[in-house]
Amino acid sequence: MSITTTRLTRSKEATELTLRLTTGELARQAARANEYTNSTSGVAPTYLQANLLVLPSRYAADFRNLCARNPVPCPLIAESAAPGDFSRLVSHLPSVSSKSLAEGLDLRTDCPRYNVYKDSKLVHAGVPDVTDQWTEDHVAFLVGCSQSFESALERAGLPVRHSVQDRTVPMYRSNIPLNAAGVFSGSTYTVSMRPFPAKDIERVREISRAYHATHGEPVAWGWDAVARLGVENIDEVQWGQAPLTEDGQPLSTVFGDEENVPVFWGCGVSTQEAVMKAPLEGAILAHFPGCMLIMDCGEDDVL
Amino acid sequence: MSITTTRLTRSKEATELTLRLTTGELARQAARANEYTNSTSGVAPTYLQANLLVLPSRYAADFRNLCARNPVPCPLIAESAAPGDFSRLVSHLPSVSSKSLAEGLDLRTDCPRYNVYKDSKLVHAGVPDVTDQWTEDHVAFLVGCSQSFESALERAGLPVRHSVQDRTVPMYRSNIPLNAAGVFSGSTYTVSMRPFPAKDIERVREISRAYHATHGEPVAWGWDAVARLGVENIDEVQWGQAPLTEDGQPLSTVFGDEENVPVFWGCGVSTQEAVMKAPLEGAILAHFPGCMLIMDCGEDDVL
Repeated sequence: MSITTTRLTRSKEATELTLRLTTGELARQAARANEYTNSTSGVAPTYLQANLLVLPSRYAADFRNLCARNPVPCPLIAESAAPGDFSRLVSHLPSVSSKSLAEGLDLRTDCPRYNVYKDSKLVHAGVPDVTDQWTEDHVAFLVGCSQSFESALERAGLPVRHSVQDRTVPMYRSNIPLNAAGVFSGSTYTVSMRPFPAKDIERVREISRAYHATHGEPVAWGWDAVARLGVENIDEVQWGQAPLTEDGQPLSTVFGDEENVPVFWGCGVSTQEAVMKAPLEGAILAHFPGCMLIMDCGEDDVL
Repeated sequence: MSITTTRLTRSKEATELTLRLTTGELARQAARANEYTNSTSGVAPTYLQANLLVLPSRYAADFRNLCARNPVPCPLIAESAAPGDFSRLVSHLPSVSSKSLAEGLDLRTDCPRYNVYKDSKLVHAGVPDVTDQWTEDHVAFLVGCSQSFESALERAGLPVRHSVQDRTVPMYRSNIPLNAAGVFSGSTYTVSMRPFPAKDIERVREISRAYHATHGEPVAWGWDAVARLGVENIDEVQWGQAPLTEDGQPLSTVFGDEENVPVFWGCGVSTQEAVMKAPLEGAILAHFPGCMLIMDCGEDDVL
């Protein structure tokens, strides 16, 4: 099977459509109809966004434990009500009822794009749906997404660079080990990155801190964090799009600049990285990084 | 102030006393009377053991968040019912009631030994009690201890080396970053180590996995994990006592031996390491590593 590589540069039409997708339900419907196949950054502002990971049921207990042991990169929000069920979820958040997560959901179609893994290897990247891959034995898990605190940062007067530039958040592999859980061992955190002025970092930490279910406060910040996290080149992302300066230059061109300090958060793509490092058998389905599932509940409902 | 350094080599008398301390209550009474001032490994078998950290109340919220973001090294079990309260605890474990934690407790005296920090620096190590340091503003936290799953390993026919040799568990600083939480940033996991035969590692993982509230399964294993964790010398511990082979030789003398594979767990001393890395003001009190608080409830009550 060939691997589709998909770049998420949003066209003028996609940007116009984004503005019309004002709720989680509208966003899911547009994704289901394959009218919307792009990054969900800026889609349905203030609605909760989630990472999706779908596993054969025999890996479900280990995956729950992986999330419990790594709540910063992998905060578990919800899972399938039963194996094979692609429409009903059980909430893991005390403040959110299962019913309020997503009405009329179809997990096989409602992300704008998907990744498909076979035997722990990525075989399809960015496909529009996974209906033909879904089986009676699949269990879906939703994990918090850091795009969920971007509205709060913007409301506080802290613009989020990739959102302003209509790009996908930059994501990297890091060297921080994920705490092992059963079959999931030997993997590391993936991290998302947003540059902020050095003087604002304590406010950025404080605002995102409250969002426990969507990664909470950053795991590292500062230009020296790039090497410390094992990120080889800040301009070369593993997922999403490369970060730019306000003027549209590669971020590395302003290395050391106090107005462009990289700030890193735990990232739910860690779940897909854990899949690739584990010896899993069978089909594993996931959202395409940046193209999240959008829920009916609000970002602030999970506080 | 001078720093007392304390070696926890158990005398014949201490070993005899250990055998008489069969419950958490007896162990706390002996610690309170300063009859017992040694490692609690092997004391009151099957009773839950805990790390203690006592902070000025203004750091309590950040510390709760540190534990929530790092449940493997810092699984939060309980905290003071109110600032200044050294006798009543509120349980954070759904399966353990607050009342069943410890009847007639005095957190100022009931660990065999204590550490005292002032302004994030260790100023007294291994003192018998901290009554003179306790204030109305202090909040105590109890964090799970890996000595709590040693009985389960032994019951499964997997002898725990340091316990067989009547020594304190070896503990090391590692390079795994603790997820930052407010004032607590820039610190790393401390880890405890027990050698097991390579062929038994999957069983060791499986048995300890269930003990979520007391660190769960290991974070790393194998001789290659020593360098990966940034442990410079397996014979030089930062807390506890150096690990030995079955014949009483330094563990490094059998480097690569499949019968003596180092297995590392998250360790509650991470909380004291986090204190030393943070810019805290005032007196912080803690147990002396290895000399834990022993509870009334059982290790298996937290499963």
